[in-house]
Amino acid sequence: MDVKVVVDTMWVLITGMLVFFMNLGFAMVESGFARAKNCVNIISKNFIVFGVSTIAFLVFGWGLMFGDGTPFVGLKGLFFVSGLDNSPAVGDAYRGVYSAINWTGVPLMAKFFFQLVFAGTAATIVSGAVAERIKYVSFIVFSFVLVALIYPIVGHWVWGGGWLAKLGFWDFAGSTVVHSVGGWAALAGVIVLGPRLGKYGKDGSVHAIPGHSMTSAMIGAFVLWLGWFGFNPGSTMAADPNAISRIVVTTNTAAAAGALAATIIAWLLLGKPDIGMTINGALGGLVGVTASCAYVSVGSSLAIGAAAGALIVFGVLALDKLKLDDPVGAIAVHGMGGIFGTLAVGLFAQDAMMPGTTGNGLFFGGGFSLLLKQLAGVATVGVYVFAISMIAWLVIRATLGVRVSAEEETMGLDIGEHGNTAYPDFVQREAVFPVSKG
Amino acid sequence: MDVKVVVDTMWVLITGMLVFFMNLGFAMVESGFARAKNCVNIISKNFIVFGVSTIAFLVFGWGLMFGDGTPFVGLKGLFFVSGLDNSPAVGDAYRGVYSAINWTGVPLMAKFFFQLVFAGTAATIVSGAVAERIKYVSFIVFSFVLVALIYPIVGHWVWGGGWLAKLGFWDFAGSTVVHSVGGWAALAGVIVLGPRLGKYGKDGSVHAIPGHSMTSAMIGAFVLWLGWFGFNPGSTMAADPNAISRIVVTTNTAAAAGALAATIIAWLLLGKPDIGMTINGALGGLVGVTASCAYVSVGSSLAIGAAAGALIVFGVLALDKLKLDDPVGAIAVHGMGGIFGTLAVGLFAQDAMMPGTTGNGLFFGGGFSLLLKQLAGVATVGVYVFAISMIAWLVIRATLGVRVSAEEETMGLDIGEHGNTAYPDFVQREAVFPVSKG
Amino acid sequence: MDVKVVVDTMWVLITGMLVFFMNLGFAMVESGFARAKNCVNIISKNFIVFGVSTIAFLVFGWGLMFGDGTPFVGLKGLFFVSGLDNSPAVGDAYRGVYSAINWTGVPLMAKFFFQLVFAGTAATIVSGAVAERIKYVSFIVFSFVLVALIYPIVGHWVWGGGWLAKLGFWDFAGSTVVHSVGGWAALAGVIVLGPRLGKYGKDGSVHAIPGHSMTSAMIGAFVLWLGWFGFNPGSTMAADPNAISRIVVTTNTAAAAGALAATIIAWLLLGKPDIGMTINGALGGLVGVTASCAYVSVGSSLAIGAAAGALIVFGVLALDKLKLDDPVGAIAVHGMGGIFGTLAVGLFAQDAMMPGTTGNGLFFGGGFSLLLKQLAGVATVGVYVFAISMIAWLVIRATLGVRVSAEEETMGLDIGEHGNTAYPDFVQREAVFPVSKG
Repeated sequence: MDVKVVVDTMWVLITGMLVFFMNLGFAMVESGFARAKNCVNIISKNFIVFGVSTIAFLVFGWGLMFGDGTPFVGLKGLFFVSGLDNSPAVGDAYRGVYSAINWTGVPLMAKFFFQLVFAGTAATIVSGAVAERIKYVSFIVFSFVLVALIYPIVGHWVWGGGWLAKLGFWDFAGSTVVHSVGGWAALAGVIVLGPRLGKYGKDGSVHAIPGHSMTSAMIGAFVLWLGWFGFNPGSTMAADPNAISRIVVTTNTAAAAGALAATIIAWLLLGKPDIGMTINGALGGLVGVTASCAYVSVGSSLAIGAAAGALIVFGVLALDKLKLDDPVGAIAVHGMGGIFGTLAVGLFAQDAMMPGTTGNGLFFGGGFSLLLKQLAGVATVGVYVFAISMIAWLVIRATLGVRVSAEEETMGLDIGEHGNTAYPDFVQREAVFPVSKG
Repeated sequence: MDVKVVVDTMWVLITGMLVFFMNLGFAMVESGFARAKNCVNIISKNFIVFGVSTIAFLVFGWGLMFGDGTPFVGLKGLFFVSGLDNSPAVGDAYRGVYSAINWTGVPLMAKFFFQLVFAGTAATIVSGAVAERIKYVSFIVFSFVLVALIYPIVGHWVWGGGWLAKLGFWDFAGSTVVHSVGGWAALAGVIVLGPRLGKYGKDGSVHAIPGHSMTSAMIGAFVLWLGWFGFNPGSTMAADPNAISRIVVTTNTAAAAGALAATIIAWLLLGKPDIGMTINGALGGLVGVTASCAYVSVGSSLAIGAAAGALIVFGVLALDKLKLDDPVGAIAVHGMGGIFGTLAVGLFAQDAMMPGTTGNGLFFGGGFSLLLKQLAGVATVGVYVFAISMIAWLVIRATLGVRVSAEEETMGLDIGEHGNTAYPDFVQREAVFPVSKG
Repeated sequence: MDVKVVVDTMWVLITGMLVFFMNLGFAMVESGFARAKNCVNIISKNFIVFGVSTIAFLVFGWGLMFGDGTPFVGLKGLFFVSGLDNSPAVGDAYRGVYSAINWTGVPLMAKFFFQLVFAGTAATIVSGAVAERIKYVSFIVFSFVLVALIYPIVGHWVWGGGWLAKLGFWDFAGSTVVHSVGGWAALAGVIVLGPRLGKYGKDGSVHAIPGHSMTSAMIGAFVLWLGWFGFNPGSTMAADPNAISRIVVTTNTAAAAGALAATIIAWLLLGKPDIGMTINGALGGLVGVTASCAYVSVGSSLAIGAAAGALIVFGVLALDKLKLDDPVGAIAVHGMGGIFGTLAVGLFAQDAMMPGTTGNGLFFGGGFSLLLKQLAGVATVGVYVFAISMIAWLVIRATLGVRVSAEEETMGLDIGEHGNTAYPDFVQREAVFPVSKG
């Protein structure tokens, strides 16, 4: 066996495992930022969604995304990753129906695993935004549709040799393909669901609903940061020493800059360095550098991360003004952060970083050409995902329903949906000091 | 240095580290499923047990398991991994006393580390089943005996070139060697200890005793799932690209199928998708595919995982009917799941997956031959481990005692055994609404 | 690309990621050992500190540590890792200004990342010792100074080709460079800050202030143990199979021995196996073997770990006698453990382990020569770091202030510093049973 295949496979599998681990990160950030009475529901959603994603991507998603076909969707080797394929053969030596991913010389099952954990990420992003009022079964059904159908089609456009790839749109590790897809699907869900009871007063006031465990949220933040060392450097799908080393550093630098920028801005705006803003700033920095991590310098990654971190603070506040109730900030972090990160390629890319890919962005003498292509991708993906997600949510609402009853929401979804409580041995605030809600 | 030795060593060490991390997974699942008043005790057990396992396997276990000797036990190079050895030489070039593991071309210390973390897993499985009433010192002593003596002998039979290996019994990553050994040892412990106070009423009723933190349990579940990407693919002990890629996918698919199957069945049986069943279903799927992960197709892994997940639901309920009180479901997951997984090799194995190993199982035209050999291994290991564990538990009971006093059990083992409480700043339910127990 | 560069880069990056993950470990151990009312503050500190470290080491620290210069400090390529460098070229083929680290054949960015996560560790160690009374902004400023200036200078002496390296002082993975630096800086901080309100009575009594979550502390302990498999074996900065395999085992053995020794001694001294001592004993064993992990046998690592674990128990108790209030035991674990570990090289090193490095220590026929050199490094680093840290703390005290008000300390730093609480849904003990503090 060629040793390059060996090392590339190890790299793809190990980084894929780190991306898998991000499911724990999302579960902890999302449940930590929500109330204790909904904790079982949220972590159950974040757990089962990866099971659902596994089946959906195995049976449907992979083929639609990577199968040879039209510029819009894969048509060959559709089900169960069962098409002809002679991986790890690459390039001209490749004989099979998954041509768009024949540039990486690893076995088909390594390609599948790495792409599966990415698909799962898109789905788990939605979970946080719709938390604390969605029916468990409805979330499961939407997640299946997202991973089986919605995500793979965007993926085909960009990473499956589709029309955006041919246009010259670049998204190295998925600011658009993964994060903004999750963000747009979440936005549609939030609109269909409406805000949580008690979140917005009739007088236009916004009530903060604090999350139940900053410890959980912080565990999640560190696990996600770690997971991003799989997400971005692993997207090389090859153990190229220079590329992976630089991507590790651009990724880390953007996260640090995002955390610091958001902390400082929140400190200035709100008077205190709010922990939620610090965490979401770091995540914003990470999402922001995801598209460009391979194409930009370390210095640029510092700027991108700082800008993304700052953006998240304003984004979270703006969404509340619009009465779009996202308990964990997922739309700001993944939606807005993903859009910004995709555009950042058009601003900061340097041909010298990965010659023969993006060319130079606006800030490095490349003019507006690349930026406009990035904008085209952002816009078309946004319109498509938002529209089809809205249809899916509306169909689910008309059939299964999407929202739990007001009684169940007040009592907490843990008892209503699961018959469990997360912390039965601990006295919770409402039990001692009952308050009326809604 | 031969580059194959380099990459194989990296693979073995990194996957071994993931298996080490499963100790955190077990600590969190087990403590999350138990009461807050016993939390310090459980996590202390799950931490110290790996320290004990390290010493026990270093001083005694490794030699008994891998030393050349009789078909029943190793006799050479017994103590401190000190026998003659010229690893990473393999096959005919190998000169040493640990011949049974000379097929993997990595340094002796890499072999030792990987096998040590497996031995530790068997011991930590027991911890959950005996939780909430066992004396700390008694658990430590049993763990030492298990890892120094009981586990390595079974290991010698199967992986140390012993009589089950020669018979044609196949257990790729340890459904029998690790999981069912832990399960049988736990069953003996549960019988000797008896149920927790208040668990079974005199009228035959079963009282649910909810775990204190579903967040802890979920952290544990994700960490274990991650750890299994070390456990199963690492058991190649070589970075063979095709094998490790496929094993990652069979492992992941079985976990997903187990989680979904258990969730659905619990939903149908109990009316709600119980989070404990979801978690134990995923773990059941993982245990279930452990023996066969290298020998079966991805489609078969889906079936195996789903069947194992379903089995765990019925197993948990059945054990309660038998008044075998296992607070975390360890006997169902690791014992029953391990047995089923071992038999699944006899049903689903395909010669084409890893030619020259298992041949075909019953469902792929191989007839009953392989299945019967698997059954022979399941039965003999079960009889041996249950019997010797029972003796060990009874000797410990007669000398140190195994169970804390009823007063201590009611008050919680944290104070009684450790002089600590896990959450001193939080008001716990019994402090505000005192209830009588037992 | 040379395959050795590929595998070495993978090894350095993956182990670096594990060291990054230790930030979660420190956050959880430190917050778990502190009170719930200060949890947001502690985990925020442990999160932001890595962001601060990233910027400080990128802009200043790397160049001062690894730039060519005098025996005392680097002077070339000072800012933004921007000096001339043709890594991964090694030895005589290397052309650049970071000569001291030209022995490892990985890209410059891989070297930077690995060294960055080490620098971050030194800073996060301080966080625990100064917990529960330090102002957030003051901690951030000190951390920046530590990573930009204090740490890199010691690093230059030992790992940057400076005077201690030339003297023949050996510290493989940083018992001195990382851990004792963190410990000395923490000691200075503890002296400047003074003890927490209510910790020491006017009558000389010592009041135990129990930590709020042993679950958090245990998560941290396991994550740190895992992270040390990056810290020590990764410090080879090359995937040398024999070295990394042995280092994994010496590291693990020392941790196990430390946990067991501290547990047993605490059991004998205090009457119960205190969980805090068990955890700190394991960490002490890990710190203790960090300097020597590559130079000693597995048997020696058992002795070193056990001695370090025992030392930590006495160290924690002694510091309380001196009224040095370190809420998490960081000075004992990292300061005392780091000193002991550095001296242990002089006692247990064997030339045969890594020929051409340490030679033999006292216990293996090498006489006192090596031990005295180790002692020289311990003493000079201690004097330097303690003195300059004291100056830094005093300057911060005179300008920003270091300690929150007594009112804020009583109420908890979470509300005072961050405007958040960690667990708003849970009733905490003081709310139901108010007690006076201070």
